[in-house]
Amino acid sequence: MKRIGLLGCGSIGTQIAIAIDTGIIPAKLTHIFDEDKEKSVSLASKLKNKPEIVENVHLLSSNPVDLVVEAASQDAVSDNALSILQNRKDLVIMSSGALLDESVFEIISDACKELKKTVYLPSGAISGIDAIKSVKNELDSVVLTTTKHPNSLKGAKFFDDFKINLDEINEPSTIFEGTASEAVRLFPKNINVSALLSISGLGSHETIVKIIADPNTTKNTHEITARGKFGQITTKIENVPDSDNPRTSRLAILSAIETIRSICTSDIKIGT
Amino acid sequence: MKRIGLLGCGSIGTQIAIAIDTGIIPAKLTHIFDEDKEKSVSLASKLKNKPEIVENVHLLSSNPVDLVVEAASQDAVSDNALSILQNRKDLVIMSSGALLDESVFEIISDACKELKKTVYLPSGAISGIDAIKSVKNELDSVVLTTTKHPNSLKGAKFFDDFKINLDEINEPSTIFEGTASEAVRLFPKNINVSALLSISGLGSHETIVKIIADPNTTKNTHEITARGKFGQITTKIENVPDSDNPRTSRLAILSAIETIRSICTSDIKIGT
Repeated sequence: MKRIGLLGCGSIGTQIAIAIDTGIIPAKLTHIFDEDKEKSVSLASKLKNKPEIVENVHLLSSNPVDLVVEAASQDAVSDNALSILQNRKDLVIMSSGALLDESVFEIISDACKELKKTVYLPSGAISGIDAIKSVKNELDSVVLTTTKHPNSLKGAKFFDDFKINLDEINEPSTIFEGTASEAVRLFPKNINVSALLSISGLGSHETIVKIIADPNTTKNTHEITARGKFGQITTKIENVPDSDNPRTSRLAILSAIETIRSICTSDIKIGT
Repeated sequence: MKRIGLLGCGSIGTQIAIAIDTGIIPAKLTHIFDEDKEKSVSLASKLKNKPEIVENVHLLSSNPVDLVVEAASQDAVSDNALSILQNRKDLVIMSSGALLDESVFEIISDACKELKKTVYLPSGAISGIDAIKSVKNELDSVVLTTTKHPNSLKGAKFFDDFKINLDEINEPSTIFEGTASEAVRLFPKNINVSALLSISGLGSHETIVKIIADPNTTKNTHEITARGKFGQITTKIENVPDSDNPRTSRLAILSAIETIRSICTSDIKIGT
């Protein structure tokens, strides 16, 4: 049974830990760490099988774990991914936005090849990454259209320069259209979806992102259209926000759990 | 570098072999087999790095290969999957329809667990299996709508009992709606798509399949709608038929190549 070290004990980390503790993921959670020790203590208190709370992130991967799961932050990835791989651990990355930095991507990819370790990026809150990565070399265009309630967009850096009053929007309105690279800079809450789609397809400078504010929706909707010699792929996911953490889609958590379950199981693996 | 044995040297097997031979898949094709030896000889003649042509299917997995790739038939899966796993080889299955037989599925799944080997099922000609398998336990309904030119449906068993003249269809017409289990029996050419979707989600008795004959289309279109507590997933793929084998969608071949490439690489693995 694989031993897992968890980096990040917030809402997502907690749900992953509970999936391990309840046997949905057939593994053993042996070590956990969070910058905020109270979060680690709080998480441990919720689990039947108590993991060891370690004092720093390096102790996660220097201990005899098989897999480290990051559910912390982009900085946690940039700062620690290489050292985790050098400690000969596989790694699941939830904060896939970190890999939009090409130098970070290259360092991690090279380390995987050299050290024969694997980094896993769950599909997150979108669907169809299985098909898009398969046709990567034949793609002509990839467009992501994200639709959210105006309240979910509040506070984005975009509004520092563009004086749109979100409270006055009374019908679905396109408020941004540009590259994934720009979208990530201006709408940090959309980072992981844009990042994962960019990495699996045309990269962040060729992937187009549209953001629509819709005062009538309660869901976070991501629609992807990809075209090329193979034909056309359209996928749309209307995500119900997670009840514990409305900023996260339920699918993002479920896809992380499925990714880790699959890593920890010898069985029939479905899908590309 | 992983050593691959190929079971089936038809159109799909040939394209996989060429992907290995040209380095798209970083592996070594060491042994090949086909019931029709001429196909093996013809395939070998197209490759720079000549594999050994073996005389029976058992020699594929008794030789020192790491992975067997099946691109032959459902019977080839039912007859040989267990023995391949018992020979301690991982296995990629293209003819996923074989796994709709619950006893076959169970034997293969149990063998994977017991022998610590893995069977891989590429997503094939559909998209979004990454999301659907993630929400498997929260699904209320899954519907697959396949749209094809009437000519692509000719010869299906369905028409033995239902006297529809496909040549007289002059607008998009729903000609079948039922369970995936029934669809597979009546429309054998749709087997792998219906099978893979069933296995990843609600099973073949709960997955609904609609088949539409559209005289105006040149593509094979598969649309999936899945609903549940998580929200709703819709994916649509308009597949251009493969130029070498019009009965196969280009995506089906590309997703097989991507699956095998990923198995043979230590790198960043994108998607659930």
